[in-house]
Amino acid sequence: MKKSYPSIYYSDYLHLEKLLTSQSPKSDEYNEHAHDEMLFIIVHQAYELWFKQIIHELSSVLDMFCKDNVDEKNIGVAVSRLRRITTIQRLLIDQLNILETMTPLDFLEFRDFLIPASGFQSFQFRLIENMMGLNIENRVKLDEKNYYSLVSDEHQKMLLDSQNSVSLFDAVDQWLSRIPFLKIDKFDFWEHYKYAVGTMMENEKQIILTNPSFTEEKREKQLKVFEGTVEKFEALLNEDKHNELVKQGVRRFSYKSTLAALFINLYRDEPILHLPFRFLTYLADIDELFTTWRYKHALMVHRMIGAKVGTGGSSGHHYLMQTAEKHKVFKDLFDLPTYLIPRSELPELPEELKSRLGFNYKIKI
Amino acid sequence: MKKSYPSIYYSDYLHLEKLLTSQSPKSDEYNEHAHDEMLFIIVHQAYELWFKQIIHELSSVLDMFCKDNVDEKNIGVAVSRLRRITTIQRLLIDQLNILETMTPLDFLEFRDFLIPASGFQSFQFRLIENMMGLNIENRVKLDEKNYYSLVSDEHQKMLLDSQNSVSLFDAVDQWLSRIPFLKIDKFDFWEHYKYAVGTMMENEKQIILTNPSFTEEKREKQLKVFEGTVEKFEALLNEDKHNELVKQGVRRFSYKSTLAALFINLYRDEPILHLPFRFLTYLADIDELFTTWRYKHALMVHRMIGAKVGTGGSSGHHYLMQTAEKHKVFKDLFDLPTYLIPRSELPELPEELKSRLGFNYKIKI
Amino acid sequence: MKKSYPSIYYSDYLHLEKLLTSQSPKSDEYNEHAHDEMLFIIVHQAYELWFKQIIHELSSVLDMFCKDNVDEKNIGVAVSRLRRITTIQRLLIDQLNILETMTPLDFLEFRDFLIPASGFQSFQFRLIENMMGLNIENRVKLDEKNYYSLVSDEHQKMLLDSQNSVSLFDAVDQWLSRIPFLKIDKFDFWEHYKYAVGTMMENEKQIILTNPSFTEEKREKQLKVFEGTVEKFEALLNEDKHNELVKQGVRRFSYKSTLAALFINLYRDEPILHLPFRFLTYLADIDELFTTWRYKHALMVHRMIGAKVGTGGSSGHHYLMQTAEKHKVFKDLFDLPTYLIPRSELPELPEELKSRLGFNYKIKI
Amino acid sequence: MKKSYPSIYYSDYLHLEKLLTSQSPKSDEYNEHAHDEMLFIIVHQAYELWFKQIIHELSSVLDMFCKDNVDEKNIGVAVSRLRRITTIQRLLIDQLNILETMTPLDFLEFRDFLIPASGFQSFQFRLIENMMGLNIENRVKLDEKNYYSLVSDEHQKMLLDSQNSVSLFDAVDQWLSRIPFLKIDKFDFWEHYKYAVGTMMENEKQIILTNPSFTEEKREKQLKVFEGTVEKFEALLNEDKHNELVKQGVRRFSYKSTLAALFINLYRDEPILHLPFRFLTYLADIDELFTTWRYKHALMVHRMIGAKVGTGGSSGHHYLMQTAEKHKVFKDLFDLPTYLIPRSELPELPEELKSRLGFNYKIKI
Repeated sequence: MKKSYPSIYYSDYLHLEKLLTSQSPKSDEYNEHAHDEMLFIIVHQAYELWFKQIIHELSSVLDMFCKDNVDEKNIGVAVSRLRRITTIQRLLIDQLNILETMTPLDFLEFRDFLIPASGFQSFQFRLIENMMGLNIENRVKLDEKNYYSLVSDEHQKMLLDSQNSVSLFDAVDQWLSRIPFLKIDKFDFWEHYKYAVGTMMENEKQIILTNPSFTEEKREKQLKVFEGTVEKFEALLNEDKHNELVKQGVRRFSYKSTLAALFINLYRDEPILHLPFRFLTYLADIDELFTTWRYKHALMVHRMIGAKVGTGGSSGHHYLMQTAEKHKVFKDLFDLPTYLIPRSELPELPEELKSRLGFNYKIKI
Repeated sequence: MKKSYPSIYYSDYLHLEKLLTSQSPKSDEYNEHAHDEMLFIIVHQAYELWFKQIIHELSSVLDMFCKDNVDEKNIGVAVSRLRRITTIQRLLIDQLNILETMTPLDFLEFRDFLIPASGFQSFQFRLIENMMGLNIENRVKLDEKNYYSLVSDEHQKMLLDSQNSVSLFDAVDQWLSRIPFLKIDKFDFWEHYKYAVGTMMENEKQIILTNPSFTEEKREKQLKVFEGTVEKFEALLNEDKHNELVKQGVRRFSYKSTLAALFINLYRDEPILHLPFRFLTYLADIDELFTTWRYKHALMVHRMIGAKVGTGGSSGHHYLMQTAEKHKVFKDLFDLPTYLIPRSELPELPEELKSRLGFNYKIKI
Repeated sequence: MKKSYPSIYYSDYLHLEKLLTSQSPKSDEYNEHAHDEMLFIIVHQAYELWFKQIIHELSSVLDMFCKDNVDEKNIGVAVSRLRRITTIQRLLIDQLNILETMTPLDFLEFRDFLIPASGFQSFQFRLIENMMGLNIENRVKLDEKNYYSLVSDEHQKMLLDSQNSVSLFDAVDQWLSRIPFLKIDKFDFWEHYKYAVGTMMENEKQIILTNPSFTEEKREKQLKVFEGTVEKFEALLNEDKHNELVKQGVRRFSYKSTLAALFINLYRDEPILHLPFRFLTYLADIDELFTTWRYKHALMVHRMIGAKVGTGGSSGHHYLMQTAEKHKVFKDLFDLPTYLIPRSELPELPEELKSRLGFNYKIKI
Repeated sequence: MKKSYPSIYYSDYLHLEKLLTSQSPKSDEYNEHAHDEMLFIIVHQAYELWFKQIIHELSSVLDMFCKDNVDEKNIGVAVSRLRRITTIQRLLIDQLNILETMTPLDFLEFRDFLIPASGFQSFQFRLIENMMGLNIENRVKLDEKNYYSLVSDEHQKMLLDSQNSVSLFDAVDQWLSRIPFLKIDKFDFWEHYKYAVGTMMENEKQIILTNPSFTEEKREKQLKVFEGTVEKFEALLNEDKHNELVKQGVRRFSYKSTLAALFINLYRDEPILHLPFRFLTYLADIDELFTTWRYKHALMVHRMIGAKVGTGGSSGHHYLMQTAEKHKVFKDLFDLPTYLIPRSELPELPEELKSRLGFNYKIKI
């Protein structure tokens, strides 16, 4: 960066001549000017710009994590980029407030011009879903059609390519499965964890059995809940049961990865685990924020068109409601809290392991 | 306000000595200090303060609207107060972000101390739901129990009282049913509306029947959708069919009120209808914002406790998800857009009626 | 809207092929890839899209208000559009949070490539300022240069044109000056207002003179403040004094408009004045939100480049701070509260006038 | 946490009987009911609750950092807590939107009852300022009085105590001054940094001197700016000059701490420095968010009372504007970007040092 560079004009740098001539309201073309169509166009264009930025960030994180070795420096960078994605997502959610300043009656004035264009055709959003790791089998179908059948051939090709590439889910699953620490020398962490859980459970059972304030009905009900919890812990620590759940679609992470993710959550205060913990947290944040966006979007569509069908020919409202629930990618991370145990019950790690989880340079500052 | 008043000290005015001594973390009481319990307490207290404010605003609007005559000056005031409620609700939604800075592991440190306390026991929130007009039959049950069985006897009494009082829904229903304009002199608006809908429908049918690009399958499907729309319009203009839908729980507003609400939406640009239009819009906004809050709350609970049961003894996550869907009060307003027709198709109102919808003083400014 | 329209593809409708190829990072061009330059570009492009939308809304409001008669139906529409602008502005403020995810060190990696491009060259933002009514004499100069000297010849022409056209400020000033009601038949509102102010003032003076708890020093100080207030009220009700203040740049609205704006604020609950009141409020909101945006922007620039000069060759931080204070257009509206008197002291309007401020159709609903 | 605990009722846990009876509108007491006084009270109470929470977080961070050795585990915890403070601050800023739903006329109805109570008397906010490290000499005076003279004797004592205790600023200054790495074995980082800066500067000078597109006037101006930059770098690397700036109030961190903060910013991607970097960033965020809050608050006060004096007897608007500028505590951090140099120019660290900045356990995952 030593030399001097040609002068740049703001407007050229941003290609404003292209950007600001990309709004062509159909209502004007058909000589039935509808004031709010401009808003409709610009809101969607702003969404697409931000989708491009999210793709830019996701790609860079994917590049770092799909390697066999993830450079330890990169975890901090990845955390910053995922955090940026969540900041953008919060804006995307608030952006719906702007679209909501358009009333249903105003929308009606140009709605018929747009058929069958629809947000379902946003290939960038589909790309994001694929990059995150949404499986074709987990996708909600629209009128019994696959998502990629709604877009142009060119975009379809892009989507199918991305569907067949390594996703962030895959990369994270791989990365987690390689995390060490779980068995070190003679220390088997999971043996200790199992014991802690067992003691905790036994104690809880005693409380249920002996609590004098319980009615028999209440006691029985509580015992049932208790047994459910016991089963869940058993499934966690039994690889076969885990693989069974994977087959049933209840779990998606591999056995090893699940345990690694849990370990990171339990010992996140150890320096070496802090950034991995943040990283996993941001992944779940991204999932949650897309879910929120889809849900708020569904509510808005309902208010905009009532019980009518959407411009894309289907009930946008119900489709979006369903995707809100089902298009989460990292749902395993949402279930992790089930297996947390209070810090006070956590097995004490051996000194040697603890030291390995710290920094090389023993600063005492 | 002519005399001078005794001096006031900020801290006394706000009763800070009470307010700031109302936080008693259980973890401290049991000598197991958990840093984040303070946050947990303060977030919930902030919620309860805002609930009190919402009740204050709702009560005042209810007072204005439960009269036989609503003063025309009051509609502007009511609109401002409903708008204030929506501003508060947006804050309540954002406030969840603060609670989310507490991690599941941190929550675990004091969670067991709180059993069976739970947000389900917020009698103020239940009061708001009752004041809005949520019916006992539309409420999602919690463990097959009624919502009021979870609170103290004193609070139960308050809830049952509010349940039996005139709600905002009732008052608005009454007010809408009294709105004039729909039949004036010889002009029957709904005859004209029916005709406009008929023409529009006939035209749409022709398009479906003759569109050469449709496959037969597609044509049939479109016709089916079309017939559904026809039926909906018929139900709208037929009092018996409407009352049938009321019985089935599909509609809740009376026949007259439904038509009045539609008229207000269609002719909202007439000066006299502008504020009633804003008023109805804010009612739907309030519903939508509570729905969003419940949904985001449900997502947060899921992340906080995973598949465990909540402190209140039930699956908070599923309960909240269900209430998000089912506790909307003004859902009739969400369905109105179904019956809107484009401005260009709207019946022209007779001059005399139009003049009645304007201001008394003919300012041309 | 009776016929059927050609099918539209989402991506074509939004010109995504243009939109998504409008990002050309300089760092890539110079083979020194800087990951965050994409963010920098996209944030600014999103700003420009929203500026276009704001211009779209402002133009339409300007069209309605620059006429000799403003249609009473249009005030509601104008209020909705100004409100939409404020919703967009809140997003623009939040959008700064996204830019803040870029650290100073990351910015340094491509900053030198951009010289001398700078946000000062956003002609759309300058256009908005001109449309609002920012005078050339009130503009903060940048390095002693006029704002338009920084942009291309083509953009310069656009800016000079807009500078010489009727602004929203001009149109609102005209509109307010035409508002009737202030002198009706034998009722001279301002005589009554003057009297009410006089009584209020006399009463306040007595309190200051007789309050036994005051020290002499305190009493004198209070009297001085009191006299300042008296002078302000006198200037309000004296056209010559008002015109003097206009010359000094303290006031900008004409005498008549100032009184009309005050009257609207005092009697905003009268149906005919409610929407004009909202209209004026949103104008002040827009000013306040741009001010907030400039201020937050200034803080961000400070953190991004420290005490260095901006890419535009000047201290962006100080320039933005100054514009935050000085580029308000409707500052007269911010000073109005000085002249409000409590509702209890307000002159009662004669019945006939009151009736004129109501609706034509006496609904009692 | 092994035993079972007594049942808790939500309402008792939160002391709702105290909390919800702490609103005593003066307008009701004086029989001049003003609807909006409730809002005024509740907004301020919500602020005070959050101030209590901020104090809770600040205290805990202060406890960790005022020790001679800061446990490396604690830095992650501190970062989370500072981040929580910023999340709360964003809410505090948005909360102003709720207060803004009260119009100046509505405020007038109870304003006189409150004199001389005022937000200046919020001892909790003053406590936060003291805990952060705001010096008495940097405080803006109000009517030439010290901030603590406005509060009750009891609160005054608390404020004076906090003023004389170790602040977060002090603790961070100490902590930074102990950070090692800057001179390690034979490697003197600052020698290398100085050299890099020198080369960069020489290069920049050549560009200015030889750029053929510059007018002589422009060239001279650029050279002046350039010399200013050179001086700044010299002051950075010269302890005497630095101490001179400290005396003048331009700098506040010690020489060692300033260099340590710069080093952390330059090499933040090294694992051991990542959390310290986040920590410093959040400190500046907190400053920036309080500044934004004060500024928005000032704008709101202006709109609410115009040119009148505030209830506290002074011009709230101007006071708040001034504090926005001057009450920043960590302003040294805002100036740091001045001294950053692009990553490509950064001295390469010796392998041994780099390894010390990494984790102990060489995971390659």
